[in-house]
Amino acid sequence: MTEPLPHCQAAETLADDQLPAGFRFGSTACGIKPSGRPDLSVITADRDAVAAGVYTRNQVVAAPVTWCRGLTPTDRFRAVVTNSGNANACTGPRGEHDTARMAAEVAQRIDCEDRQVLVMSTGVIGHTLPMDKVVTGIDAAIAGADHSASAFRDVATAFCTTDQYTKLHCTTAKLSAGTVKIAAIAKGAGMIQPDMATLLSVVVTDAALPMAAAQKVIADAASASLNRISVDGHMSTNDTLLLLARNEGTACSDAEDLSTLTDAIAEALIDLGKMIVADGEGATHVLCLQVDGATNDESADVIARAVGNSPLVKTAIKGNDPNWGRIVSAAGYAGPKIDVAKTSLSINGVEIYQSGAPISFDAATLSGSMKSASDVHIHLTVGDGPGQSRFWASDLTEAYVSFNSEYTT
Amino acid sequence: MTEPLPHCQAAETLADDQLPAGFRFGSTACGIKPSGRPDLSVITADRDAVAAGVYTRNQVVAAPVTWCRGLTPTDRFRAVVTNSGNANACTGPRGEHDTARMAAEVAQRIDCEDRQVLVMSTGVIGHTLPMDKVVTGIDAAIAGADHSASAFRDVATAFCTTDQYTKLHCTTAKLSAGTVKIAAIAKGAGMIQPDMATLLSVVVTDAALPMAAAQKVIADAASASLNRISVDGHMSTNDTLLLLARNEGTACSDAEDLSTLTDAIAEALIDLGKMIVADGEGATHVLCLQVDGATNDESADVIARAVGNSPLVKTAIKGNDPNWGRIVSAAGYAGPKIDVAKTSLSINGVEIYQSGAPISFDAATLSGSMKSASDVHIHLTVGDGPGQSRFWASDLTEAYVSFNSEYTT
Repeated sequence: MTEPLPHCQAAETLADDQLPAGFRFGSTACGIKPSGRPDLSVITADRDAVAAGVYTRNQVVAAPVTWCRGLTPTDRFRAVVTNSGNANACTGPRGEHDTARMAAEVAQRIDCEDRQVLVMSTGVIGHTLPMDKVVTGIDAAIAGADHSASAFRDVATAFCTTDQYTKLHCTTAKLSAGTVKIAAIAKGAGMIQPDMATLLSVVVTDAALPMAAAQKVIADAASASLNRISVDGHMSTNDTLLLLARNEGTACSDAEDLSTLTDAIAEALIDLGKMIVADGEGATHVLCLQVDGATNDESADVIARAVGNSPLVKTAIKGNDPNWGRIVSAAGYAGPKIDVAKTSLSINGVEIYQSGAPISFDAATLSGSMKSASDVHIHLTVGDGPGQSRFWASDLTEAYVSFNSEYTT
Repeated sequence: MTEPLPHCQAAETLADDQLPAGFRFGSTACGIKPSGRPDLSVITADRDAVAAGVYTRNQVVAAPVTWCRGLTPTDRFRAVVTNSGNANACTGPRGEHDTARMAAEVAQRIDCEDRQVLVMSTGVIGHTLPMDKVVTGIDAAIAGADHSASAFRDVATAFCTTDQYTKLHCTTAKLSAGTVKIAAIAKGAGMIQPDMATLLSVVVTDAALPMAAAQKVIADAASASLNRISVDGHMSTNDTLLLLARNEGTACSDAEDLSTLTDAIAEALIDLGKMIVADGEGATHVLCLQVDGATNDESADVIARAVGNSPLVKTAIKGNDPNWGRIVSAAGYAGPKIDVAKTSLSINGVEIYQSGAPISFDAATLSGSMKSASDVHIHLTVGDGPGQSRFWASDLTEAYVSFNSEYTT
């Protein structure tokens, strides 16, 4: 069997009392992955709870996305079952049937209706699920589920596909009625340019949230975080981000509480998003892009995406090359109006292009600073407008190409 | 000195009588390129002629693009001077001054006005031109210019930057008043996703064309050819395509003649476009994409571009992997409406996805056919609408990444 997957730093030190009460976590290796690694997990709520989701905007969607879309937001949530190693995407009516059956198998074991169970799948596209293994896995995952930190960590592990380490983030938010806990999981690591959410991510909180509020919280948090990352600009068929909350306990309902909770969740998802980008297939750097001076925020976002997705920019960063011409020209073709005479650029705090013209800088020193750290900070000003955006992208390496030209053949 | 650049097949067999009369071709190595390869050329018209151009739509444009835009279309064209090895882009007022001086140095030597001389530059962004070398080069290129096939071929060579071979195409068009000759040059090989024209390309014909007609001919031909290719989806700052024609000789003015001429030029430019893609940095395959069934042609074009620019599709083709999931999912996120239930895909004539579901096929045989030829034919149907598009893209290889992460550092 393959070596166990390493954990992110937050997972290493996770304690039981960091997890929101009211949810149980179970996982197993049921044999979907040929490697024998964990590939099936279940998160259950002890009683009816709240779930809200945001999903891929790809028109080609996997069966579990269609299933979840029809069921969220809800205040009758009882469980979400997730398999990795197989996306159950482009699998036609058989795929839809298998998704419904996964929900039914869980529902039967925890005594609820099928429609109270959500389903997520991630992995290779176009293969039907080995349902006998899946059902055995559901049985084992539910039987072993508990409230512990190690169980939560194991669920994060069972989400992973080509990820090189698990990704979780636990935090708290101080609401007017008390402090609530937030625990979030995500997985990457290729076909990543979410337009509503990343591949798979679940946020669990013990805040008591009305379901409409939960939907707004997770949509707002996603647009500030996971919607702003890219590994390869290819939007997945399976992107799903779920927020699981409670119907009871610490209330979160006034505007200030909702804003506090949204910010805390967005921060957790930015941390997870950066981990996904850093763990992008073959990635050696995270491009941390800040664009300002655009006509509006939407324009800034389009420009940031164009820069972060340019193969010429991404290969330059891989080579620790402060190649400003590639960055400025990508901003120039992105689409939104820019003011070339007011365009300036700095990398890692060093100004290298100012008011539409290059300025002299110590290229060797700057290249050294790019080489010495994983994060490369690119700050691009494209005029004097109010629009700004942050975006995180991985660089492009030979290893990305090798990996993805050998993935299924 | 570096080895001489190989020629494309058409260049090997080029004869003097394939070239349109009335134009002279001169070139030299003036030292802009450290390699010592040819880097400066001049094409002159024996008397006032017609020139029309299409240019990059990047908002960040090189000084020579701004110069040419202000002067075309014209019926007083006398010369175009071109340097490679330095794009004269993002060089501020100094760059504009250097472009004007290049025109003036040519004008002085052939006895015309500065405004009768067009200028093109290609190469690295952000460095000012070594004008002493450029002026010496202009002197030598004009002194040696003649009507010969070898001189024309040498101009094609002097256009090249990271190209691995010269790219030219000679053909004829039968107009009502007689047969005209068409000779075209282009160069690639990175930062290629033209939105009006490719990096640098010149088409010379002995047809007598009114200048407004020339503008329409070259714009129409470009949109069917060079506007439909991509190496890396990164639009250049310097893209320029010029059509040079005559004020006298075989008339081309009625609608049928113009259509015949446009088609002949488009075919020449498709051939050159495919050469550019095949010679894309590190490329091992040309993805020949045909999309049909879209709502309209524009939608089909957007879908074809999304597929041709997806790093996951490009790496799959590099690995001879008929990974239909990546192709179909790229169509799904491109933007335009697709009808998933009527979506079908074939690669090299083998149907592998039909009406929204995978069908069984011999993957090993299909992979073998992809491996055995440079062109990979991808035919994607996305519904039953009338919209269709053709698009040509290079695959993505480790060599592209290596090359572009080492380009300036």
